[in-house]
Amino acid sequence: MPDASLLDCFENPNPARGYVIEHVSEEFTSVCPKTGHPDFGAVTVRFVPDKLCVELKSLKLYYQGFRNEGIFYEAVTNRIADDLQAAMAPRWLEVITDWKGRGGIRSRVRVEVGRRPADTP
Amino acid sequence: MPDASLLDCFENPNPARGYVIEHVSEEFTSVCPKTGHPDFGAVTVRFVPDKLCVELKSLKLYYQGFRNEGIFYEAVTNRIADDLQAAMAPRWLEVITDWKGRGGIRSRVRVEVGRRPADTP
Amino acid sequence: MPDASLLDCFENPNPARGYVIEHVSEEFTSVCPKTGHPDFGAVTVRFVPDKLCVELKSLKLYYQGFRNEGIFYEAVTNRIADDLQAAMAPRWLEVITDWKGRGGIRSRVRVEVGRRPADTP
Amino acid sequence: MPDASLLDCFENPNPARGYVIEHVSEEFTSVCPKTGHPDFGAVTVRFVPDKLCVELKSLKLYYQGFRNEGIFYEAVTNRIADDLQAAMAPRWLEVITDWKGRGGIRSRVRVEVGRRPADTP
Amino acid sequence: MPDASLLDCFENPNPARGYVIEHVSEEFTSVCPKTGHPDFGAVTVRFVPDKLCVELKSLKLYYQGFRNEGIFYEAVTNRIADDLQAAMAPRWLEVITDWKGRGGIRSRVRVEVGRRPADTP
Amino acid sequence: MPDASLLDCFENPNPARGYVIEHVSEEFTSVCPKTGHPDFGAVTVRFVPDKLCVELKSLKLYYQGFRNEGIFYEAVTNRIADDLQAAMAPRWLEVITDWKGRGGIRSRVRVEVGRRPADTP
Amino acid sequence: MPDASLLDCFENPNPARGYVIEHVSEEFTSVCPKTGHPDFGAVTVRFVPDKLCVELKSLKLYYQGFRNEGIFYEAVTNRIADDLQAAMAPRWLEVITDWKGRGGIRSRVRVEVGRRPADTP
Amino acid sequence: MPDASLLDCFENPNPARGYVIEHVSEEFTSVCPKTGHPDFGAVTVRFVPDKLCVELKSLKLYYQGFRNEGIFYEAVTNRIADDLQAAMAPRWLEVITDWKGRGGIRSRVRVEVGRRPADTP
Amino acid sequence: MPDASLLDCFENPNPARGYVIEHVSEEFTSVCPKTGHPDFGAVTVRFVPDKLCVELKSLKLYYQGFRNEGIFYEAVTNRIADDLQAAMAPRWLEVITDWKGRGGIRSRVRVEVGRRPADTP
Amino acid sequence: MPDASLLDCFENPNPARGYVIEHVSEEFTSVCPKTGHPDFGAVTVRFVPDKLCVELKSLKLYYQGFRNEGIFYEAVTNRIADDLQAAMAPRWLEVITDWKGRGGIRSRVRVEVGRRPADTP
Repeated sequence: MPDASLLDCFENPNPARGYVIEHVSEEFTSVCPKTGHPDFGAVTVRFVPDKLCVELKSLKLYYQGFRNEGIFYEAVTNRIADDLQAAMAPRWLEVITDWKGRGGIRSRVRVEVGRRPADTP
Repeated sequence: MPDASLLDCFENPNPARGYVIEHVSEEFTSVCPKTGHPDFGAVTVRFVPDKLCVELKSLKLYYQGFRNEGIFYEAVTNRIADDLQAAMAPRWLEVITDWKGRGGIRSRVRVEVGRRPADTP
Repeated sequence: MPDASLLDCFENPNPARGYVIEHVSEEFTSVCPKTGHPDFGAVTVRFVPDKLCVELKSLKLYYQGFRNEGIFYEAVTNRIADDLQAAMAPRWLEVITDWKGRGGIRSRVRVEVGRRPADTP
Repeated sequence: MPDASLLDCFENPNPARGYVIEHVSEEFTSVCPKTGHPDFGAVTVRFVPDKLCVELKSLKLYYQGFRNEGIFYEAVTNRIADDLQAAMAPRWLEVITDWKGRGGIRSRVRVEVGRRPADTP
Repeated sequence: MPDASLLDCFENPNPARGYVIEHVSEEFTSVCPKTGHPDFGAVTVRFVPDKLCVELKSLKLYYQGFRNEGIFYEAVTNRIADDLQAAMAPRWLEVITDWKGRGGIRSRVRVEVGRRPADTP
Repeated sequence: MPDASLLDCFENPNPARGYVIEHVSEEFTSVCPKTGHPDFGAVTVRFVPDKLCVELKSLKLYYQGFRNEGIFYEAVTNRIADDLQAAMAPRWLEVITDWKGRGGIRSRVRVEVGRRPADTP
Repeated sequence: MPDASLLDCFENPNPARGYVIEHVSEEFTSVCPKTGHPDFGAVTVRFVPDKLCVELKSLKLYYQGFRNEGIFYEAVTNRIADDLQAAMAPRWLEVITDWKGRGGIRSRVRVEVGRRPADTP
Repeated sequence: MPDASLLDCFENPNPARGYVIEHVSEEFTSVCPKTGHPDFGAVTVRFVPDKLCVELKSLKLYYQGFRNEGIFYEAVTNRIADDLQAAMAPRWLEVITDWKGRGGIRSRVRVEVGRRPADTP
Repeated sequence: MPDASLLDCFENPNPARGYVIEHVSEEFTSVCPKTGHPDFGAVTVRFVPDKLCVELKSLKLYYQGFRNEGIFYEAVTNRIADDLQAAMAPRWLEVITDWKGRGGIRSRVRVEVGRRPADTP
Repeated sequence: MPDASLLDCFENPNPARGYVIEHVSEEFTSVCPKTGHPDFGAVTVRFVPDKLCVELKSLKLYYQGFRNEGIFYEAVTNRIADDLQAAMAPRWLEVITDWKGRGGIRSRVRVEVGRRPADTP
């Protein structure tokens, strides 16, 4: 089960400067709560850190907690956003999930928290 | 014949947050009403849900209703937009159809309903 | 010779809604008036229809009229824009021509008529 | 229902020479006999003609006969091979079908009749 | 745990003809027995059927049995080959696994059983 | 009308050595003799010269002769092969034409004259 | 040596309309003034013409003047911008040079003169 | 160890004009301070020069100083930005680092100093 | 300095079967013995194991030994082949190095030991 | 003028082993002897060294000798082959030149000296 307490943070080395960090995992998997079949996707996280930055290995372990969890696309995306928001309290946070096709339809869910910095494509 | 009543919705798990959902089907086909030959295309749907989200399998079945329907590109696109608007009443909705070439010309039709959220490319 | 009277239109099925239609032909050819050698290019047409939409087969036949016409890149692009403007009177119109290289230089000409709708990339 | 009698042939313009013709259709659809859902794929046909060549428009109409037919991948491929063999009696024939993913698995079936000409990749 | 008895087969519709079937799954995951971290890869299966063909949905379920199994790349590949060989007894069988990078190194393992048909790239 | 006498040749600078020359034109167009609509394609010519090599500008002018000629794919390919064979008498010659899609089907025709040199892919 | 007097212009066929012309040359070379080794790059020119448009063949000859000139990336880009500005006096002008890697670093320089037209990506 | 004094600058040849210079190095490596294993990435630097431009060979030597340095992604990016800011005092500066995957997660860090010029994507 | 004793092997799980293993590292770097500047490349290793298979993490550590070693492309490739041959004694071994461009020239070196298995591309 | 005496060689570090070296330069330019306009191309050299290997920097300087030389594609390719053959006396040598389009036609010339090693694609 995904466990937000796994998320470790380290101190932002440059809190005076508003800069953007992005982590992309193309090895995410969870389970469809309706069919019980696995879902495969990619998770992109972007944020402007305030006092804290999420540590990479802890992020990977946190993602692994979804591996056998029955959970919908929308819930995965909102949950990751909520957990990272709680762990880091960044100035801005964006979570995007891209899911491989099911029944010929592929999906993307995008959640944003806080005000997007100018010039961020 | 396309049947809007096939569209099932589930409750938006996070109605307080304005976030974006996208579903892309590259396996859409209908029939050209002029020539009777099949048309092949891709349908992209993007929306900010309000109270409801369209369920994926029901969307697939709804699309299959166009399979033997004689209908123009423009009408397909507007109809899907109208049917999804009626089913979900989202805060914002965009429907894009991309059609394979006919006579050396390939086409795209884009319909938008409501105000596009900032930062949505 | 290109003949604007070949352009047939049909009634916009949804004139109340401002939506975008795009037609791309990668099989366009005309003749360089200076050298007499053929030019090859792609023509992209985008518009927000008002009362009328151009019919695809008539657009193809209209393009074929340029096949043996000696005419410069800039004139081709402006002429297609003028002819489509006259035929459809759309709310907005964009014509882009992309020409294969001549002497190691490839070219693009872009003409726009009316105000571009927001969010149109 | 697919109807082999739709296949028209014309006389090979150069029967003395062993040369290769290939036709690729990326707009093929049939129906899964188990689930009733549509399958989408591409069909590639390659052959060395003997006395006859299949006519392109008749090939397209023949393919359209599979549109609402419940039939497995393997059977589609063998049937197209048998019908083209019967219609053209080519010196060599290859039929390849490439199917979009189902349940995360995409498939290809390849049938060959007669001896492949040297140097045909 | 992977369970070979999940593999269902159906009768080869054309046993007189030697033809090639390929199934590619890009949604395969198992667990590294050394680190306990998940591995992600793609599995490609190619075969010339004799009397039997493996059924697609059963193949998918069989693959899902590796999801929480600690097993090396080489063992995954040999095991799939052995289980499919036992289930179908094909005239020729090839199993290729492509694994996403670990420590900056990505790997591929290829096992072949029986004599490869001529002209199979 | 295509005119083989336009093909100029120059002396092979190294007739003692068997080497390969390839010319690719992606700007070829002719006319379908059935529908009167233009066809667009690419022509690839490969050969091992004997005493003569075709001159590039003359090849281009020769191709332009097909521009308004009603002629089938198969005939275009065989005719170019015959005309180049007559003009250059190369040790080996291959002509491949790749045609843009018509009715959702794209085609390729490949003609070879003489024995292909080893190691020529 | 680059010679701005080589730049020929012709009259803008549609001076009443603000439209965009782009010419891309991927065959540009000059010489590094420090090492004496050749530099290779691509030059992209975009402009909204006022009374004049640069003629393509004269642009090509003008570029050839840089072939044996020792000159830095930044100077090449500013000089082309200055020379085209002097020759055409366009309403807007953009010159971009993209240089192949030197010492593992590839570079781009972008100069803009006048106000960029809206909607020009 | 990275040594900012290695950064040589030359005089901006056109200080009156605000133009953009970009240097991309895809051959950057440093060492992870936690694991001691090497990190590989690409560094993109974009700036509007004021009085000075960084010289390319000195930039390359400066980058090589990170080769055996244990330093986090975020610190690399901020340090390069600080060192270039100190060396050139540009009107605007952007530094982007793109890191190859570790544990299935690839990262990007983007730092910006000063006001981004309009129309810079 | 590269240290062959770092290479750990494990027992081939299926020595009776001749199968192919491939490991690709795109994060290889050494130093040019002439200029002292770093070289960057990719190393591909393919082999048919006999009794032993090289362990992935040990291979990565062995590669890291080249990081500060002054050594030519040809010597790197032959040395890796010799060291792996000594460590595993495989039935067949191929080592390919692909080097990023220097002075506008990029290079590849390919060493093969033993007889390549049939059907290995 | 190209000067074969610029080609420096070093001793093959492993003359007992038949292995393949490849050098690709995408920055080659010469001059068309007919029109006086520059030609741009890529040169690929592959060889199995015997006693000597060509040194990279000398190869680059040798290529630069063609910069202002009026010479046909076929002659460039044969000359590079002859000069490298004379300089290195390799066991096998292949030279391929790929030329950017002229008049819509792009060309490739391939010369081979000696017997191609097995398994060299």
